[in-house]
Amino acid sequence: MKRWPKISFTEEGMREGMQIEDANIPIDEKARLLDALSETGLQRIVVGSFVSPKWTPQMERIDELIQKFTPKEGVTYTALALNQRGVERAKEYSPPLTIERDRWPRLNCHMCDVFVRRNNNRSQMQEMERWPKIVAQAQENGAAEAGIGTNASWGSNFLGDFSVDILMAMLERQHTMWDDANIKVTSCSLGDPMSWCMPHKVEDTLIRIKERWPEINHFRLHFHNGRNMAIASGYAAIRTLGTDDTIELDGSIGGIGGCPYCGNGRATGQAPSEDLLHMLEDMGVETGVNLDKLIDCVWMCEEILGRTLYGHVSKAGPRPNSTSQLYDMNAPFVETMEQAKHFKKGPKAYEGGIYPYKEPITSPYRERVDQGLPAYESKESNWPWNQDWLPE
Amino acid sequence: MKRWPKISFTEEGMREGMQIEDANIPIDEKARLLDALSETGLQRIVVGSFVSPKWTPQMERIDELIQKFTPKEGVTYTALALNQRGVERAKEYSPPLTIERDRWPRLNCHMCDVFVRRNNNRSQMQEMERWPKIVAQAQENGAAEAGIGTNASWGSNFLGDFSVDILMAMLERQHTMWDDANIKVTSCSLGDPMSWCMPHKVEDTLIRIKERWPEINHFRLHFHNGRNMAIASGYAAIRTLGTDDTIELDGSIGGIGGCPYCGNGRATGQAPSEDLLHMLEDMGVETGVNLDKLIDCVWMCEEILGRTLYGHVSKAGPRPNSTSQLYDMNAPFVETMEQAKHFKKGPKAYEGGIYPYKEPITSPYRERVDQGLPAYESKESNWPWNQDWLPE
Repeated sequence: MKRWPKISFTEEGMREGMQIEDANIPIDEKARLLDALSETGLQRIVVGSFVSPKWTPQMERIDELIQKFTPKEGVTYTALALNQRGVERAKEYSPPLTIERDRWPRLNCHMCDVFVRRNNNRSQMQEMERWPKIVAQAQENGAAEAGIGTNASWGSNFLGDFSVDILMAMLERQHTMWDDANIKVTSCSLGDPMSWCMPHKVEDTLIRIKERWPEINHFRLHFHNGRNMAIASGYAAIRTLGTDDTIELDGSIGGIGGCPYCGNGRATGQAPSEDLLHMLEDMGVETGVNLDKLIDCVWMCEEILGRTLYGHVSKAGPRPNSTSQLYDMNAPFVETMEQAKHFKKGPKAYEGGIYPYKEPITSPYRERVDQGLPAYESKESNWPWNQDWLPE
Repeated sequence: MKRWPKISFTEEGMREGMQIEDANIPIDEKARLLDALSETGLQRIVVGSFVSPKWTPQMERIDELIQKFTPKEGVTYTALALNQRGVERAKEYSPPLTIERDRWPRLNCHMCDVFVRRNNNRSQMQEMERWPKIVAQAQENGAAEAGIGTNASWGSNFLGDFSVDILMAMLERQHTMWDDANIKVTSCSLGDPMSWCMPHKVEDTLIRIKERWPEINHFRLHFHNGRNMAIASGYAAIRTLGTDDTIELDGSIGGIGGCPYCGNGRATGQAPSEDLLHMLEDMGVETGVNLDKLIDCVWMCEEILGRTLYGHVSKAGPRPNSTSQLYDMNAPFVETMEQAKHFKKGPKAYEGGIYPYKEPITSPYRERVDQGLPAYESKESNWPWNQDWLPE
């Protein structure tokens, strides 16, 4: 079996999600949701952001939220802060918050000069102006490792597509500055606020980064999902990188998320956490997350927001992976979304549905499974391979 | 640039989609939608199925639909028929329908004996009983090529997971029968009615098939999306197969689809066609489909069904790929789903939104783009690489 990179997942629903939802959602509801998320086994949860309430009223009462919620031991809670004022505000709540600074001194910029002006109130040139100071500071601190990175890496709603060649040229420029300072680059951050990620481009980008700079072994990937490419892009990253690499990935329950500056608002979204984690589990990545509890959170979030969200595993249920979760062979028709919820609500969800069979369904395979045997034995074995009815 | 396999796409919304929706949708509405789909550039459209109206009342009036819609020259219209009676009914409407039989005599079975009993009213054993006759008939007809295939290939809601080893063992058994008959196997069909596809398993399966039988160069892949893996699985297939291979893929507008037998009903879904085709276009695959018109169809379908569907590109819009489609740098906040529709409805969609900037946003990059120049020149060129403000 192929082994995968180490994957660290961060839940962004309370931050990326709530920042684009109704500003009037009661804090009690948010605290209830955050507490439920804390019980799922998620290891990293962003609780919100310390930003100007003038432009992000959704985060105005973050202080209250932090005072109200019940931190769970072992969970790392963080908050986004975009400037020194935000960091100071966050520090008042540490603990429970962990104040995380980038582990690497990093040269970073937006590939899209328009988006950074709209979202961060500065230009790409102003981002770059800080690079020499960042390098000088890293040298002064005796930093052994450094990072590079871009945001809006693959394209922009305001400027169009950026080729991987151009992206590599920008990373090269950053890397050269660290080379000149004799500091080894081991981390690369690639953001995608406007949903321009595409799996083949992500794959191409990561292959080229690893070929050019094999010593980069830490990747922070932040994909948005406005064009439904976040999960495929995440898969592309995982399949491309090696077992010595680490990927930081994020998602949000129900796939909520977005910002008012990118031009897509709530349609931006992120990878639905429940769908991404369900995939990771099947790939053999131990996430530590109880999917059943996570789906409870999605349903709670749908109730709070008053609408159906974008994920799928919360609607069809995870693939049943134990005998007790397997569906009843003699379940009636399951047609509606409400009936489909039987995976959590039990048979009463489809009670009264059409039952089209004259005789109850039976199957020798299911009999085996119900007895704790595998549906199929290995091909050297007896069942079903040596049965009379299986043509030679 | 990496080249991809040849891809043939089939639109399944009128069949896979409508079969799990309200049986009372007026035929005029269905004809209107089918006519709109015909104008998008889609090359293959399944219009519905000839099945028993007792269990699939959604298809009871398919005759009327076929009489009402306006066939477009160059589009291949097909219908599903599960038995001889269905084929006879379909033949009455050819043209406009193309009556397609599998191009290959094929040995096929469901990996899940329970699902085939629920859905097709026969057992896996009964499917296999026909294999010797199929081979004999192919020999009699002098067939030069043959196919193999499975349905419920990667797992079942009623039996659990099927490993790729087990899947390969089943395909091997089929292949051996063709080998014994001296008929070359060139096609493989892999279905997934219960949404158990996973990109890493699809990749593993296809790699192993190509290693074992390099002469198989035609793949029919039918993925369902109940766990949000259909697009990632499609990508995995495309990246894995070679330029000499052909993949038949399908999807449905808005991602609608499912059957009452699988246990997930409407939550089953398929890859939303608009999202899949948008990805293919960016990969350089010429689909011939006008995405703008396809999104009109999704919106029409949402209006007919009375709810928001599952795709994303219909909500955030395609990635703008021409100067005229780029978003206004000075657009106000875009927050709601209605505001996000500006990509089709124009600026009036976000009229009155918050405008947070003291000075209008300007950018030298956008000036270039508005003049028809690329945002970035190649890295050997002047812009922006040799500008004073770009650190060396």
